[in-house]
Amino acid sequence: MTANTPKDILTKRIRTANKDVPADVVIKNGRIIDVFNMEVLEADIAITEGTIAGIGEYDGNEVIDAHGKYIAPAFIDGHVHIESSMVPPEEFARVVLPHGVTTIVTDPHEVANVCGNRGIQFMLDQAKDTCMDMHFMLPSCVPATPFENAGARLMDEDLRPYYDHPQVLGLAEVMDYPSLRSAAPDLIGKLTSTTLEGKKIDGHLAGLDPHAINIYRAAGVLTDHECNTPGDALERIRRGMYVMMREGSVAKDLLALLPAVKPHNSRRFFFCTDDKHIDDLLRNGSIDHHVRLAIANGTDPMTAIQMASLNAAECYGLTDKGAVAPGYKADLILFDDLNDPVISDVYKEGKHVAKNGSYIGPAPGRKDLASAITNTVHLPELSEVSLKIPMESSKANVIKINPNSLRTDHNVEHVQVENGSFLPSVEEDQLKLAAVERHHQTGNIGLGVVKGLGLKRGAIATTIAHDSHNIVAVGTNDHDMIQAIKHLSDINGGLAVVVDGKPVASLSLPIGGLMSDKTAEEVNAALDHVHHSLKEQGFQGDFNPFLTLSFLTLPVIPSLKLTDKGLFDVTKLRHIDVSCS
Amino acid sequence: MTANTPKDILTKRIRTANKDVPADVVIKNGRIIDVFNMEVLEADIAITEGTIAGIGEYDGNEVIDAHGKYIAPAFIDGHVHIESSMVPPEEFARVVLPHGVTTIVTDPHEVANVCGNRGIQFMLDQAKDTCMDMHFMLPSCVPATPFENAGARLMDEDLRPYYDHPQVLGLAEVMDYPSLRSAAPDLIGKLTSTTLEGKKIDGHLAGLDPHAINIYRAAGVLTDHECNTPGDALERIRRGMYVMMREGSVAKDLLALLPAVKPHNSRRFFFCTDDKHIDDLLRNGSIDHHVRLAIANGTDPMTAIQMASLNAAECYGLTDKGAVAPGYKADLILFDDLNDPVISDVYKEGKHVAKNGSYIGPAPGRKDLASAITNTVHLPELSEVSLKIPMESSKANVIKINPNSLRTDHNVEHVQVENGSFLPSVEEDQLKLAAVERHHQTGNIGLGVVKGLGLKRGAIATTIAHDSHNIVAVGTNDHDMIQAIKHLSDINGGLAVVVDGKPVASLSLPIGGLMSDKTAEEVNAALDHVHHSLKEQGFQGDFNPFLTLSFLTLPVIPSLKLTDKGLFDVTKLRHIDVSCS
Repeated sequence: MTANTPKDILTKRIRTANKDVPADVVIKNGRIIDVFNMEVLEADIAITEGTIAGIGEYDGNEVIDAHGKYIAPAFIDGHVHIESSMVPPEEFARVVLPHGVTTIVTDPHEVANVCGNRGIQFMLDQAKDTCMDMHFMLPSCVPATPFENAGARLMDEDLRPYYDHPQVLGLAEVMDYPSLRSAAPDLIGKLTSTTLEGKKIDGHLAGLDPHAINIYRAAGVLTDHECNTPGDALERIRRGMYVMMREGSVAKDLLALLPAVKPHNSRRFFFCTDDKHIDDLLRNGSIDHHVRLAIANGTDPMTAIQMASLNAAECYGLTDKGAVAPGYKADLILFDDLNDPVISDVYKEGKHVAKNGSYIGPAPGRKDLASAITNTVHLPELSEVSLKIPMESSKANVIKINPNSLRTDHNVEHVQVENGSFLPSVEEDQLKLAAVERHHQTGNIGLGVVKGLGLKRGAIATTIAHDSHNIVAVGTNDHDMIQAIKHLSDINGGLAVVVDGKPVASLSLPIGGLMSDKTAEEVNAALDHVHHSLKEQGFQGDFNPFLTLSFLTLPVIPSLKLTDKGLFDVTKLRHIDVSCS
Repeated sequence: MTANTPKDILTKRIRTANKDVPADVVIKNGRIIDVFNMEVLEADIAITEGTIAGIGEYDGNEVIDAHGKYIAPAFIDGHVHIESSMVPPEEFARVVLPHGVTTIVTDPHEVANVCGNRGIQFMLDQAKDTCMDMHFMLPSCVPATPFENAGARLMDEDLRPYYDHPQVLGLAEVMDYPSLRSAAPDLIGKLTSTTLEGKKIDGHLAGLDPHAINIYRAAGVLTDHECNTPGDALERIRRGMYVMMREGSVAKDLLALLPAVKPHNSRRFFFCTDDKHIDDLLRNGSIDHHVRLAIANGTDPMTAIQMASLNAAECYGLTDKGAVAPGYKADLILFDDLNDPVISDVYKEGKHVAKNGSYIGPAPGRKDLASAITNTVHLPELSEVSLKIPMESSKANVIKINPNSLRTDHNVEHVQVENGSFLPSVEEDQLKLAAVERHHQTGNIGLGVVKGLGLKRGAIATTIAHDSHNIVAVGTNDHDMIQAIKHLSDINGGLAVVVDGKPVASLSLPIGGLMSDKTAEEVNAALDHVHHSLKEQGFQGDFNPFLTLSFLTLPVIPSLKLTDKGLFDVTKLRHIDVSCS
């Protein structure tokens, strides 16, 4: 008996619940985790047309033996930029599903900054063909700031058509606090459109105090994933927010926030990764890592699982997600040890999609990608002259990086000057930094001096450069920098290491200059090769230089950054010269 | 500064939060109850255009001194039939607002059974003019059963147009379990329409076991308000339901259910009154009574208040209700004692609407009511012959009432027979019972014998007769019964006491034969008079005979009931003769 119309499906589900017909699938011998009462229940799970029809004693056309394993609701990642994994939605799903995450709320902010609506549409289209539920929040800040040139500009009227899309849940992280605080008209338009559609709004309240929380809540913003102290979490919850506890590849806030979670307020907490790279996903997992980490640090396993499932579903109004109960989608995970859940099996709407860490669902369909998506590196003719930094004296404003932090310091240092221009120095670790506009062939190039990256030879460059994703390059000499930038153009974006004018390692990321069209394993191997070759060239830092580089262009985090419009003083919110007068 | 468009309102709220402009209203010196963290916070509440803009230090055009009182979110009644109060929405709001209830979820099931869609529309129209938020669930079972004639029949297609109404949240209590279990097409249609609209479905699972819970949940039903043991509550919650703890004028389940409420599952519980009469509302209150009763019986006050506010809002997706926080409606209550909250002040969207138990909001506007609503008693010519019960022997099937219970017993007794017909006996307390179809002048009359009502003289009759609301009358003689029935026709429905052919007391309920067009106080006084006159006529029971009478026609509760189609054996689900063969 198959059912097609909504009425047929409902009738079949009721008839299954009433045992008039056998279930499509029954899972027996499991220990069901009841995230409502925080109890464990031994019973059969009857599934029909992907939804749970009953918990009790059931017969099914297919019977699965859970062998005494725990059965929990599959996990939800409350906020994730798929682009940060460097693979597109289909491949992302293949990697993350085995970790028990069957639902994500994603913000295509990065690809939208490169490709605008075409980027959003690409992600929506790809998401449809995965067996992961990918819900979308629409990027609220493209471009992220007025201090840089991005690939696109998305106004309220550009976003509005997407609210009708069934996968769109609302407006993504509102991060432009100055515009919010001043009630800037376009942002007011976006917020109003979202609210009138009955959709949700995510926030981004890095380091913000109760005054700012009031403003965000007055605007209808429901979540924050940027807070990292228990006190900040309680302030946000007190004013009606949900707090997402983030554990990504760079920002790791979970352990700092756990002390805020109590039985009476745990309903307002859930988990997200935000930005997690492919190597990290493959090695450590996704939300399953949050759950294990929380339990290992004293969180009750039931609470950890509830935060990983039901709470996120409630926040986003996903009424058929987040629990093992009739009427809920049969998105289930199986594991042996409640105190250290390592997921052995994942079911998406009753279908077995992962086993022992491997994806076993339908193979992702490879598609022809539109050139608007894969041809996004547009450069004018460049030469070493383009990279000259004129110096009036030897005193320069220098970006000083802090390993494993997004913050930089603003140093003033004496640098080498030759023929009136800055000359990089490996000895002083004063290297040249360039941000090259790559979307519209404007020829805009911002130049600066950076300390702390510790390159000994050659140059590196990448098209992953938050949030506008121009090209950012750093080098010990202009020739290698130019070659690295040109090589990125040749490979349609990605990462490149150039020494003596030759690329010695690179990773092509042709999808928006952000994502690969290869498998996750291939991308991971290429990344390994890039990092290995960097070490061969003498790099000795205990941080990821590409990752560091990709945030040197983000002009919303202090102190000194570089955009394609030049060196940017984040504290003073204005561009400044490299040369100090 | 006033704001009209959604964008203007949002802009003003943000500017208020940011202290660029003063709030419309600021409440100072209150102790704010934070239902998220379960803490008390001392801060100002800034309100603009009816919504809270900030919690902190604020200036306002109007400043209210809370004098150290607690400030909690106003209460929500999760399921209430306004008709049971005997006053229409405007008057109901005037009575209930002073008890801190600013939001209700109502099911116009009674008036819909009389007037169909016109009844629903009447309630929606009246609700709009109150300063209470009245959300509607659409009656799922009109008529309630096939065993009686109601005033209307509402199919899926009749309800569907209402889903667009902003106050309609979904489908009201699905109580027809046999139709649900057998997946009856019209019910499947109603359930599917509701689900496709993204709306909620309420349940009605009186005495039902986990098998039935599976079926209800498979159908997408989200709530139950009929369970009355902790075990039953946990079973419903385990399968994904919310449990409403009902405390009405007849059904009182709160104390029985409280032991099921724990910190980790309290989010799935909230409060409702279901059916509460005007005298009870005036005397004891509404959801405020639940809160006091729960606290007096050991519930943590914070949890009690959370169940009375936030939890109901979450269940029904009312994202701007249920908390004192920015972005939430300024629906607030003030009281002195956290351990015995007696509400001194009620604010609806920042407006002071009740003080010390009295309504002080805008006066309800009296309107001309359409005759389709006020002229609903349609009887053919009746005479005493119409009430003859032919008897083949003196052995009769007798309805035996149980005081203060909706259940009856099925007795077989010897009765007086005269000229081949039943003759009532005051001595044996065997009185005549009649259910007279009053909607379509069909002349249908069901007749029976009832024991336990204890009338000594005359007859009583009412148009409140669940769920079809035909006329139900009981009497010691046919003449008084006919006069009581005719008097109800004269007064367009209500309650009547007739002795020696004359009405000695009555209450006119011209709105559908269910609700008065007078004030609550006038209705209460008239009810007092009715009950006083009953006592004068020798009635000595410690129960409400009209209330008992009004449920003798409800053919879904065992054992023996009477409809306009005749005596009904609920156990066998068929009509039977009065006379035993």
